[in-house]
Amino acid sequence: NDSMDTAAKVSELASAKGYDLVVAGVPKTIDNDLGDEEFTLIDHTPGYGSTARYWMSIISDANQENQAISTSECVCVLQAMGRSSGYIPAAARLADPDRRMPLQIYTVESGHNLESLHDHVNRQLGMTGRCIVVVSEGFDVGNIGAAHDRFGHIEYGASKQATAQVVANYLNEQGLNARGQASWQVPGVLQRSTSLCLSSVDTEEAFEVGRKAVEIATSEGSGYMATMLRNPGNSYQLYYDKVRLEKVAVSARQLPKHWLNSDGLDVTDDFIRYAMPLVGEAWVEIPLENGRPRFSRLKREFEQKKCSEYIPLLYRD
Amino acid sequence: NDSMDTAAKVSELASAKGYDLVVAGVPKTIDNDLGDEEFTLIDHTPGYGSTARYWMSIISDANQENQAISTSECVCVLQAMGRSSGYIPAAARLADPDRRMPLQIYTVESGHNLESLHDHVNRQLGMTGRCIVVVSEGFDVGNIGAAHDRFGHIEYGASKQATAQVVANYLNEQGLNARGQASWQVPGVLQRSTSLCLSSVDTEEAFEVGRKAVEIATSEGSGYMATMLRNPGNSYQLYYDKVRLEKVAVSARQLPKHWLNSDGLDVTDDFIRYAMPLVGEAWVEIPLENGRPRFSRLKREFEQKKCSEYIPLLYRD
Repeated sequence: NDSMDTAAKVSELASAKGYDLVVAGVPKTIDNDLGDEEFTLIDHTPGYGSTARYWMSIISDANQENQAISTSECVCVLQAMGRSSGYIPAAARLADPDRRMPLQIYTVESGHNLESLHDHVNRQLGMTGRCIVVVSEGFDVGNIGAAHDRFGHIEYGASKQATAQVVANYLNEQGLNARGQASWQVPGVLQRSTSLCLSSVDTEEAFEVGRKAVEIATSEGSGYMATMLRNPGNSYQLYYDKVRLEKVAVSARQLPKHWLNSDGLDVTDDFIRYAMPLVGEAWVEIPLENGRPRFSRLKREFEQKKCSEYIPLLYRD
Repeated sequence: NDSMDTAAKVSELASAKGYDLVVAGVPKTIDNDLGDEEFTLIDHTPGYGSTARYWMSIISDANQENQAISTSECVCVLQAMGRSSGYIPAAARLADPDRRMPLQIYTVESGHNLESLHDHVNRQLGMTGRCIVVVSEGFDVGNIGAAHDRFGHIEYGASKQATAQVVANYLNEQGLNARGQASWQVPGVLQRSTSLCLSSVDTEEAFEVGRKAVEIATSEGSGYMATMLRNPGNSYQLYYDKVRLEKVAVSARQLPKHWLNSDGLDVTDDFIRYAMPLVGEAWVEIPLENGRPRFSRLKREFEQKKCSEYIPLLYRD
C-alpha cells in the first residue's frame, strides 16, 4: 500500500533525524487490498463498502437490462477495479445472493484465462441464452498496453486497452452459443465517485476512523495507522484500534482462497456474510439543488509561499 | 428509426393485403433522435429524460472525483451513447448549467476531430490543470472495428474499440499540458439501465404515451405513432397526440445547429431550457429488499405453439 508505505518511511526518517513529527495513517482504498487475508490488521478499508454498493446496484440494473436486450446483446461484460485483488468484482454477487442471475465473476484469483472464460460463458449461454460477466481489470488477458502511476503500479484506467474489451472481442471472435453479441462496459472512476451509491455504513466508518487517527496521533505518538476490526459473532459490530504502519505498509491482500467456489466463477456465502453488512440498507440522502447533487463548495485560499523552492537532494548541483 | 420503420411497413402490408390488423407505434429511444429538428413530430422520446438525468448525475460526481485525483488523472474522458446524434452527451451540461466545471462536450455535430480536441483540452489544462471530456460514441476517431446490429447500424457497445479509448490514448500519446494522464470510461448499458437515475417526469410520460397509443389504436385505426408535444411558453407542459408512422419512420434528427455554441465544445442555454424539465426534480423511490432494488418478478408462462415452424418466403424450397 503506497500511502501507508510512504507514511511509515516518513515517520521512520523523522524519528531517525530527531525531527519532532507525528505521523498517523488513515486507511482508504476502494480496493480493500490493505492488510492481511486473515483480517487481523484491518477488517475492510473505508471506500470499499460504497464501491461494493455500486456493484450491487448496477448488477441488479444490468440484469434487468440484459433480460430485455439479450437477443441482440446476449453477453454483458463489465470491468471492475481492484488491480490484483478481487474484492470489488466479488461484490457483484451481492446483487444476487440467491444465485438466480446468469452471473459469472472473473477475479485475478480465479485462475481462469480467456479460453476457459469462453468455455464457461458458452456453457451458460446454452442454459439461459444470456450471461453477465464481471471481470477484474487485473484479470490476465495478455498485453493491454499498461500505463503506470508514479508509484510504478499499473493504472488500468489510462491503459491503451481495457480488460473487458479484450474479453468481449475474444468472445465475439471465437463465437457465442446464443443469438447476439457481447458488449463491454468500463465504469472506471464512476465506481468510486457515484454519490447515489454511498453506503451509509461506509460513510460513518470513514468519519470515525479519521477521528480515531487524530486520537492516536495525539495520545500515542507517531507511526500508527488507525484501523477498524470486527467483533466475532453473527451481528456486525466494528471497533476502532491502531496498528503499526510498518505492518500494513508491506501488506497487500487478495481474496482468501476459501472464499472462491470450486469452479472459480463465484464467491462463497462466507464472502457474502463478510461484505453484505458493509453496503448498508437504505440509500443515503443526497441533498439536491434544482435536481442536481449539492456538494460542499470550498473557497480555496492559499497561504503565500514562504520557503524557497524545494529541490530534491539528488537534483541539487 | 428502425422500430417505427418496421411498424409502418407492417401496417402498409397488412392494409394492402386486406388483413385486419391495427398497428400503433409507441416511441422509445434514449437517443432522442426520433423526429425532426423543429420538434413538430415529437418533442422528445421516452427514455431520454432518464438517460439525461444519469449524465447530469455522473458528471456532478465525476467532477468531484476529478478535483481530488487530477494530479494523477488530469483528464477524465467519458463516452456517451447516441450514435450520430448529440442529445445524450449534451445532457452532461445539465450537471453544470452555470459553467463552473472544466467540461468539454464533443458531439458528432461539433465538427471537431482528434487534433482539434487535443488542442482544446490542452488549452483547458493550461487554465485549470484538469478537464472533463464527454465524447459521443459516434464522434469520428477513425476505424474502431465497428460491430453491427441486425438493422445494419453500428453497435458501438460491441465494437472492437471505444471512441473514448481512442481519444484518451491520443491525448496521452500526443502529450498533456498538465501533470497526470487521461483516463477513459465507457458506461455503456449503465446509462440506460441505472434505476436510481430514473427521471420521475420520464417515467410518467412513458406510461402516458403508451396509454395514448392504445387509445389511438382503438379509436383511430392503423398506421399512427402516439407522440408527445410541448405547449409553447416558459412552463413545461406536454400534450399527447398522434402522427403518421411514415413521417417518423424516415426521420433521424441531430442537435439543431443553433444549440451548439460557436467553438463546438458546448451546448447553448436553449438546449438547457429544453432538456432540464425532462430530468425531473427529486430522486424516484426505488423499493428496496435487503438493501437491493426490488424489481417486479414475472412468472413466464408460454402458450403451447400451435402453428408450424415459420420459414421466411425466400428460404422456402
